[in-house]
Amino acid sequence: MSKFIACDSNYGDSSVVLFGAPFDGTSSYRPGSRFASQDMRGDSFAIETFSPYQQKDLADSNVYDAGDLEFPFGNTERVLDIIEDFTRNILADGKVPVMIGGEHLVTLGAVRAVYAKYPGLSIVHFDAHADMRDTYLSEKLSHATVMRRCADLLGRERIFQFGIRSGEREEFAYSKANHFIITHTFNNIEKTAAALASASIPVYLTIDLDVLDPAELPGTGTPEAGGVSFIELLAATLEVIATSNVVAIDINELSPRLDTSGRSTSLANKFLRETLISITLKEQQ
Amino acid sequence: MSKFIACDSNYGDSSVVLFGAPFDGTSSYRPGSRFASQDMRGDSFAIETFSPYQQKDLADSNVYDAGDLEFPFGNTERVLDIIEDFTRNILADGKVPVMIGGEHLVTLGAVRAVYAKYPGLSIVHFDAHADMRDTYLSEKLSHATVMRRCADLLGRERIFQFGIRSGEREEFAYSKANHFIITHTFNNIEKTAAALASASIPVYLTIDLDVLDPAELPGTGTPEAGGVSFIELLAATLEVIATSNVVAIDINELSPRLDTSGRSTSLANKFLRETLISITLKEQQ
Amino acid sequence: MSKFIACDSNYGDSSVVLFGAPFDGTSSYRPGSRFASQDMRGDSFAIETFSPYQQKDLADSNVYDAGDLEFPFGNTERVLDIIEDFTRNILADGKVPVMIGGEHLVTLGAVRAVYAKYPGLSIVHFDAHADMRDTYLSEKLSHATVMRRCADLLGRERIFQFGIRSGEREEFAYSKANHFIITHTFNNIEKTAAALASASIPVYLTIDLDVLDPAELPGTGTPEAGGVSFIELLAATLEVIATSNVVAIDINELSPRLDTSGRSTSLANKFLRETLISITLKEQQ
Amino acid sequence: MSKFIACDSNYGDSSVVLFGAPFDGTSSYRPGSRFASQDMRGDSFAIETFSPYQQKDLADSNVYDAGDLEFPFGNTERVLDIIEDFTRNILADGKVPVMIGGEHLVTLGAVRAVYAKYPGLSIVHFDAHADMRDTYLSEKLSHATVMRRCADLLGRERIFQFGIRSGEREEFAYSKANHFIITHTFNNIEKTAAALASASIPVYLTIDLDVLDPAELPGTGTPEAGGVSFIELLAATLEVIATSNVVAIDINELSPRLDTSGRSTSLANKFLRETLISITLKEQQ
Amino acid sequence: MSKFIACDSNYGDSSVVLFGAPFDGTSSYRPGSRFASQDMRGDSFAIETFSPYQQKDLADSNVYDAGDLEFPFGNTERVLDIIEDFTRNILADGKVPVMIGGEHLVTLGAVRAVYAKYPGLSIVHFDAHADMRDTYLSEKLSHATVMRRCADLLGRERIFQFGIRSGEREEFAYSKANHFIITHTFNNIEKTAAALASASIPVYLTIDLDVLDPAELPGTGTPEAGGVSFIELLAATLEVIATSNVVAIDINELSPRLDTSGRSTSLANKFLRETLISITLKEQQ
Amino acid sequence: MSKFIACDSNYGDSSVVLFGAPFDGTSSYRPGSRFASQDMRGDSFAIETFSPYQQKDLADSNVYDAGDLEFPFGNTERVLDIIEDFTRNILADGKVPVMIGGEHLVTLGAVRAVYAKYPGLSIVHFDAHADMRDTYLSEKLSHATVMRRCADLLGRERIFQFGIRSGEREEFAYSKANHFIITHTFNNIEKTAAALASASIPVYLTIDLDVLDPAELPGTGTPEAGGVSFIELLAATLEVIATSNVVAIDINELSPRLDTSGRSTSLANKFLRETLISITLKEQQ
Repeated sequence: MSKFIACDSNYGDSSVVLFGAPFDGTSSYRPGSRFASQDMRGDSFAIETFSPYQQKDLADSNVYDAGDLEFPFGNTERVLDIIEDFTRNILADGKVPVMIGGEHLVTLGAVRAVYAKYPGLSIVHFDAHADMRDTYLSEKLSHATVMRRCADLLGRERIFQFGIRSGEREEFAYSKANHFIITHTFNNIEKTAAALASASIPVYLTIDLDVLDPAELPGTGTPEAGGVSFIELLAATLEVIATSNVVAIDINELSPRLDTSGRSTSLANKFLRETLISITLKEQQ
Repeated sequence: MSKFIACDSNYGDSSVVLFGAPFDGTSSYRPGSRFASQDMRGDSFAIETFSPYQQKDLADSNVYDAGDLEFPFGNTERVLDIIEDFTRNILADGKVPVMIGGEHLVTLGAVRAVYAKYPGLSIVHFDAHADMRDTYLSEKLSHATVMRRCADLLGRERIFQFGIRSGEREEFAYSKANHFIITHTFNNIEKTAAALASASIPVYLTIDLDVLDPAELPGTGTPEAGGVSFIELLAATLEVIATSNVVAIDINELSPRLDTSGRSTSLANKFLRETLISITLKEQQ
Repeated sequence: MSKFIACDSNYGDSSVVLFGAPFDGTSSYRPGSRFASQDMRGDSFAIETFSPYQQKDLADSNVYDAGDLEFPFGNTERVLDIIEDFTRNILADGKVPVMIGGEHLVTLGAVRAVYAKYPGLSIVHFDAHADMRDTYLSEKLSHATVMRRCADLLGRERIFQFGIRSGEREEFAYSKANHFIITHTFNNIEKTAAALASASIPVYLTIDLDVLDPAELPGTGTPEAGGVSFIELLAATLEVIATSNVVAIDINELSPRLDTSGRSTSLANKFLRETLISITLKEQQ
Repeated sequence: MSKFIACDSNYGDSSVVLFGAPFDGTSSYRPGSRFASQDMRGDSFAIETFSPYQQKDLADSNVYDAGDLEFPFGNTERVLDIIEDFTRNILADGKVPVMIGGEHLVTLGAVRAVYAKYPGLSIVHFDAHADMRDTYLSEKLSHATVMRRCADLLGRERIFQFGIRSGEREEFAYSKANHFIITHTFNNIEKTAAALASASIPVYLTIDLDVLDPAELPGTGTPEAGGVSFIELLAATLEVIATSNVVAIDINELSPRLDTSGRSTSLANKFLRETLISITLKEQQ
Repeated sequence: MSKFIACDSNYGDSSVVLFGAPFDGTSSYRPGSRFASQDMRGDSFAIETFSPYQQKDLADSNVYDAGDLEFPFGNTERVLDIIEDFTRNILADGKVPVMIGGEHLVTLGAVRAVYAKYPGLSIVHFDAHADMRDTYLSEKLSHATVMRRCADLLGRERIFQFGIRSGEREEFAYSKANHFIITHTFNNIEKTAAALASASIPVYLTIDLDVLDPAELPGTGTPEAGGVSFIELLAATLEVIATSNVVAIDINELSPRLDTSGRSTSLANKFLRETLISITLKEQQ
Repeated sequence: MSKFIACDSNYGDSSVVLFGAPFDGTSSYRPGSRFASQDMRGDSFAIETFSPYQQKDLADSNVYDAGDLEFPFGNTERVLDIIEDFTRNILADGKVPVMIGGEHLVTLGAVRAVYAKYPGLSIVHFDAHADMRDTYLSEKLSHATVMRRCADLLGRERIFQFGIRSGEREEFAYSKANHFIITHTFNNIEKTAAALASASIPVYLTIDLDVLDPAELPGTGTPEAGGVSFIELLAATLEVIATSNVVAIDINELSPRLDTSGRSTSLANKFLRETLISITLKEQQ
């Protein structure tokens, strides 16, 4: 399999390790996020490596693209274990993991490993959906419960949600009753990032791409009207990375083949380029 | 056929009756709006019943989903009669009809019934197109003439148009010469709603979904660039319903299969949820 | 959810129970068979109920359509249990189950229940793929291992495979070493059916629709060139049902949304009609 | 609008007049045949004008392409009148009309005009569907009733049906009770053509392209598995034209945009080329 | 081939000549812009001729639609010669050429002809991509080098770029080192237009439609997130035409078939209508 | 870029070298064959390596997959030079080249190199189109002239064409006047292969996949109804390889993205597997 454009560092020299987690086994509506990392790599050669936004070039970064994990579809627990193990090894080598989903449940595997290393971990969560159900179709492990499982692990006050515009009444109540949730917008993202930074709290940044308006990213399983723009998402992401101590990142829920125009994959690749430049060049300092 | 999510009241207990009018027989360009209500119902289980915008839940409403009317394709007059009869019965039982088109001509059938009950009726019309031609391809009954036929019935000063950005020179002249037309935007929607309310005028609200920008709703027969956003449409709709005496609503011109990503149907469902919550919970008070 | 056309018997009066098993959780390549039963029902109104092949009408049959089972995606074992339980109940009431997949693994759940009632059970298996691997991606339960699991249960000499044109070397060896496998064609189907009938052996008929040539059924996850025609499949199926003691049937691996022309779903509906007429009218005698 | 490739004779010199009837107003399931003639012309430049089957070249023929008729959608009676008038004029000038549908109902307009000129007219009908219902959704005029209306006009013994493989029990009974119907195949086409020829009976040839197997022509509104091949259809058509006194032809029910690969339109164009070469070069003798 | 709606002036009476340059031979990623002019004409009848933005009607303009140039695919030099010759003739007759691409390289052919007539020519360039590479895949002539070739001809200080948000580091450096580049927005467009006007500089306006956000125009070969809106592009274009001495225009890189919803072609048609009204009615004064 | 499944020999050990020639620059109608080799590799993991037809396994072969050549789009001569050079090197090392197109013109580059080594070369050509024009759109180098250019080089009596069913009158005349052409079928393929073998003539086998019926392979630029089946193509190909001295092979004109179901790519992969097993295991003896 080809590597993401300009991510051709060898493992030893890298400060950031990119990998795919092509799992969509609990998707209840429209699966397809399993194709995200594969399709992103294949189309990554259609974008430039230079960022006019950051005026830096991904070619100057030291990212190792580890390819995709191989999963036994149908066995969700084992899938999460595989992700957790892989992430643990990256962290043990002092590198930053950047994972491409797959559905949002993959976050849980990575969070388990990151939390083991950083017990003070907080999560900054960009999403259209709260993902705070306790169970979904009687199951504890689901794309719709993933942030609740993270909350079980870290404590609910450690999760900062932005862009949420869909959920059950109980999910909104749960999120609000504890820490906070910012609906529809990235308002207060600077304040949140600064507070986390000043308290020296390590941050896991998880980005469900359906936080974007479906006009800009139609290629996702559960499109939700009324979302943020690419420019807004980019600004918020760069803000968090620049300000806080981000120790791991994932980008998930691109379902590339639901968008026959190909622009969703193109956007995701551009967003990944910006994210990698931002986290890597920071790491390299 | 399944019912729209959470619209499982029985007829007797309901205050709002939802029904589909799957007719697109006069569509001159690209038919397909006939599939709107069927596809909306089928995908409605992918949205939540709770509205974070209104902080209310559709599950608390009393909407009866009457399913789709059955039409003889090719006989336009009979189609309009069927819609008129069905609407009349709903009104006779003191309920509010909410109709899902189909093409925009279906509005005429419903307006005939509503006007019979409410002779003082005005129409608030959201659309990209004026629909004010006198004839189209020599025919009086067409998606392109529907608001003119309504104007013939109610008087042209009773129609308030918002979002219009396409039409013949004569249509714009006709609209302007009489009452008013607001192009491209929802400017003055609050003023209009308030004026109608203070005069106790019953309002028929007809929403052609192509008033939205095609970026947000590509699944429509005649996409027209430069439209309003979902958030703007939602705000305008909730404003009219909250302020005025809305006695009937229709939502039309979704052509779901022109959008292979499925997000147009998803948006329409979310919009319908918001509309139903708004009109129903108001009715229930 | 609507019922399959003309399958409107009530449960008590029915001799055949139709149900959907919309699971594709172990699909390693392209998921989507989960939509088969839903899309088939929705489009079933586009076919006639009368069979010019059998000169009988489905409207005269007594089929109860039980709708779709609800599954917890991500938990394969529970999915199989749900199918097994449901099938057992149908059999306990003396009715014939006809299951629409879903991926091929759903067969295992049903076979467990049928085998419990009929210990002498044999399986007639139409497929492009042998599905005889022992494990797939280290998992025992997979669409690629399902017939091996059935062989574990019944004995490998009890499985009669037709149309197979893809598999690993070991799968072909396994199949051939024991009973028999007929590659590419339905040759000897009459002989097999007759032998099973004369020995009074109860038969489970499992039909993976990818046995068809992808020219006729493009809507399937792993299309395999060089398959049989609809006419050949219909003839073979009617032969087995007419001759043998068929006690359960499943039809699986339609992935309707991979075929944007809709004809795969249409073919599957026509095939289901023929199957139901054949098994039902036989049962009713 | 461009002309079909090589159909650039002027009207006066032509022996055959090609025209489009882009109407699909009674299509109850999936409209779209209205785009057939427009899309066929646009893609006709991708085929050669030379027929290796007949060893003749369309460039040597004298076909006038009159373009498409313009219809008032929603008024079926007027549509049929427009077709009838246009056909009558062609016949009055001693030319052979070749009409591209649209849905199958357009045949009725043309048959009315042809029957007025040739009272002894018979119809040879290639189709997957009998189209012999008396009414459909309470309407007399429909794609599903068109051959019944023709039978009302000519007498039911004057209609010869081939390829039929779908219909209601009553339609098959009606067809069989009178003259004959050949299901699934073109068996006896030579015999029929010869009988018509020896009795000097003028023949209207109507070809619903869904007579083809959907594998070869997926772009049609109601695909019906188990059809004939292009080679078989070509042979049958050339046989009828060569043997009988064919005085008018129509080719209908291509719905080009249901087939995103474009091959259905390509096949239809190739078939039209063969038909035009056959009828024109015969006429020119 | 049909003409663009309302562009039915004859050549002698016209002040503006519209023509298509359906070439995409150097497209390295996804070809398809060759279909732009053909598909735009075919769908142009779905838009109105009246502009509610300018309150003028294209039917009052005198545009001659010359159809599409015919190109030898695979011979890039000859393609550019054909464009240059054709443009030269239009200019020699005192008319304004408006060219529809094709890929962006077609601009070079036209610029050569326009520069020959107007040695003081400047270029206003709307695009997502700088197109300022010196070579691409070792070739001097490419969609990715076209503005560099224009810069070679006119001088690099004569090119004014707006909306650029993608390029190599060297391209941004090149553009900035000389005149100026405005990234991401149309800021300063009024100032630029005014400066060009006050210096009486003839202007070639080249619009790569991928300057738009892919949400509004998904039908383009290399979609680039974070673009401008239709309303912004329209305002900038009308500003330049109204203020400056625009002597030639091209609109390129629509790839219509990448957008199955059809709205990209619809937007391009609406944009062309506005452009033609603006340039023509100005010319007619 | 990933390698085709099981083609993981290193160059030194290989007897067959597989490479892609992703060029479609002269395609006049619908480009897209440039994606064939890339998409085939990506999907090759969905097929098995074992051939039930030949009872051999590709995993036992020694094929080196050299990846794709990189081409300067727009410069046809250089593209052919690159192909010729690459092929010459493979031949110089005593290996058999197997090239994946790309459009059919790529064959010319390879034939030049093969002919230089084997002056007695003949070509066996499977195709729907004769490709025997002298010029196309005034160009000598085109997908429509490629076999004529080969005939210029080898002599027209050295080209043996099968499956041809489209061409200009002159192309058919040209082919027939010299050696022979077999239209529509593979009749006489055994006789031809045997004659070539007995005369010890080295054979270049070029397979345009549109020789297949578009029902089986819709993913090709110029689909031509009435073609051969996969089973027939497979048999003919294995016959030629088994019987004759095949020294080079190419497979071209798959346009994968015209077939959204993915089955065209799947068929091409299966066909490539069979071809590679056949040629490689023969070479290894």
